[in-house]
Amino acid sequence: MNKSREPYLLTPGPLTTSLTTKQAMLRDWGSWDSDFNDLTSDICQRLLQAAHAEDHCVCVPLQGSGTYAVEATLATLIPRAGKALVLMNGAYGQRMAKILHYLGRPCVTLDMGDYLPPPPNRVDEILAGDSAITHVAVVHCETSSGILNPVEEIAEVVARRGRRLLIDAMSAFGALPCDARGLPCDAVVASANKCFEGVPGFGFALIRREVLERCAGNAHSLSLDLYDQWTYMARTGQWRFTPPTHVVAAFAQALTEHEAEGGVAGRLARYTANRDLLVAGMRAMGFHTLLADRWLSPIIVTFHSPSDSRFDFSTFYRLIKDQGFIIYPGKLTAVESFRIGCIGQLFAEQMRGVLAAVRTALDAMGIADGAPRPEDLNPVEF
Amino acid sequence: MNKSREPYLLTPGPLTTSLTTKQAMLRDWGSWDSDFNDLTSDICQRLLQAAHAEDHCVCVPLQGSGTYAVEATLATLIPRAGKALVLMNGAYGQRMAKILHYLGRPCVTLDMGDYLPPPPNRVDEILAGDSAITHVAVVHCETSSGILNPVEEIAEVVARRGRRLLIDAMSAFGALPCDARGLPCDAVVASANKCFEGVPGFGFALIRREVLERCAGNAHSLSLDLYDQWTYMARTGQWRFTPPTHVVAAFAQALTEHEAEGGVAGRLARYTANRDLLVAGMRAMGFHTLLADRWLSPIIVTFHSPSDSRFDFSTFYRLIKDQGFIIYPGKLTAVESFRIGCIGQLFAEQMRGVLAAVRTALDAMGIADGAPRPEDLNPVEF
Repeated sequence: MNKSREPYLLTPGPLTTSLTTKQAMLRDWGSWDSDFNDLTSDICQRLLQAAHAEDHCVCVPLQGSGTYAVEATLATLIPRAGKALVLMNGAYGQRMAKILHYLGRPCVTLDMGDYLPPPPNRVDEILAGDSAITHVAVVHCETSSGILNPVEEIAEVVARRGRRLLIDAMSAFGALPCDARGLPCDAVVASANKCFEGVPGFGFALIRREVLERCAGNAHSLSLDLYDQWTYMARTGQWRFTPPTHVVAAFAQALTEHEAEGGVAGRLARYTANRDLLVAGMRAMGFHTLLADRWLSPIIVTFHSPSDSRFDFSTFYRLIKDQGFIIYPGKLTAVESFRIGCIGQLFAEQMRGVLAAVRTALDAMGIADGAPRPEDLNPVEF
Repeated sequence: MNKSREPYLLTPGPLTTSLTTKQAMLRDWGSWDSDFNDLTSDICQRLLQAAHAEDHCVCVPLQGSGTYAVEATLATLIPRAGKALVLMNGAYGQRMAKILHYLGRPCVTLDMGDYLPPPPNRVDEILAGDSAITHVAVVHCETSSGILNPVEEIAEVVARRGRRLLIDAMSAFGALPCDARGLPCDAVVASANKCFEGVPGFGFALIRREVLERCAGNAHSLSLDLYDQWTYMARTGQWRFTPPTHVVAAFAQALTEHEAEGGVAGRLARYTANRDLLVAGMRAMGFHTLLADRWLSPIIVTFHSPSDSRFDFSTFYRLIKDQGFIIYPGKLTAVESFRIGCIGQLFAEQMRGVLAAVRTALDAMGIADGAPRPEDLNPVEF
């Protein structure tokens, strides 16, 4: 039992952050003052370095949630005469298609349903058959299912066909390697409150400078115009509109802690260990993961709900929350599921804690084990 | 001298907040969890009460800066076939016209230059002469000059002509009375980091429910679609996309402190006292306010720069910052000026402190007094 402290968040973000990151918010900053401009410049430079992108990319931060940064990137980088191919296998791919619909940009989709990865050869066929497609958009880690999409292979296909790639790396960047030197793409979009373990309030895009330089006038929105945000910031050092100053200060501290942990490699190691502990423990209780091992991300894992008729997610959620852990509901359309995250300030102790809480919750509900309905299991080893 | 603590912010926001407001950010919240949904619902209800709007309005919070909330309100409430009249006397009125240009909504402007108030009878004439105008947009307190625009009189004219009014009350709401029962307008837009003294990260609009109900499909942007944000929130209790959880928690605490100070009336009294102390002290040093007393807001005051050739704003700014106070540059096109704010956790002690810092800075620059060039003074008592 752990009711004395706030619950740990085993979710895809907002997540549990360090106390020192939160304490960085105990100061007010003048958004026009040079001290704050230095802070902004510093975090942008460090984000570029985390992707080895400082030579040919710029980092444009944007107030709002990660979705704002995705919408802003699509709107700013895809010209009004462009056409997009969106690779979908979950809510975040679907959201990009919805954004393009708002934008009035022509858009075709490759919809793989709830969790199948977009096959690079299918992408190749679509591009071969439609020369009007200028841009391809893909989600790196689709947290709807937790799947890690094969972005490197897709990037290669897109580059070979002479099209441009935009990656929503929201819940991946900071923990999964992203080396802009070897990855042919125009933009990588992410947000403060994912694997860098900041608090929510802004997102950012790393964009090829020579691409962004040609994007004046593309955007549909003043607030979401990344070209305008970039040129203003380059000229003045300031954000165009009031930045979330405290959130930015927390992010600078979070970046310092990211670097102290060994950067992307260090964080990947911890999250992977978290996931392995979680998956092994859940499987020992009879639970099944939605995905085969090769597609499991170290970000969040989807489990089938138990087949036992006494299982009810909201009771399960509450029983686990009472023990100090917040898990996440499922987002699949076809089968019952729930998700448990591996990111944030979580270590072996917390992963063992949530496993114990799951066991206690099952016992309280009178459920012997987590075995799902056999007919819900993934029939093909894709 | 006050170098031991962070500087006080005498700016139009982000501003100096209470330590207890910032300490409310020392906890992580699950954005999907009912505890956080309760927090969101609570702040929305309290904001409606602050405007006596709980009967016929809804409060829709939106991630991002105040400008995002203004853009979202214009885009969601003005139908694609609508036409707007924007009343401009500074940067924020100009910004609304710029947003409408992005949106592709027809727009006419009444541009009063840097600081003259929009005369209600001119608004009446424009509306009489252009029946295509469906909406009028006005800034309550235009912080470019600090002027308090006559929104009540304008609202009356707009209502009499059967048009709809949208008010950007960003830097006014929370300190200047806003009684939705007697003010004929469709929306009042503001943000967390102004007179309610929260930290920056989201804005909000109070919108007539029966108006918003008819706004499906108007918005140009998924992220900025207030209709979609409202209906989703009404259905689920959640924000559509990741909210700035810590900023929301800080705002709940800031609202409690706002109420403890006597709500809008209490805050107005303190800000007015701050302004009176500031203006009297500055005038005693020879400075002149840009505006005549009847137009001065209790939010921020613009002063003419001294005529002395040794005056240089960046030196002045730095000398004052070294003494623990951050002031604000001017934003006028025609004359040199600077601004000093009265809002945030500022009391008589801080206002006396900034006056002493101004005196010290003048002395260090070898300037006898703050007298401006006579030809820069406002020639008409408008």
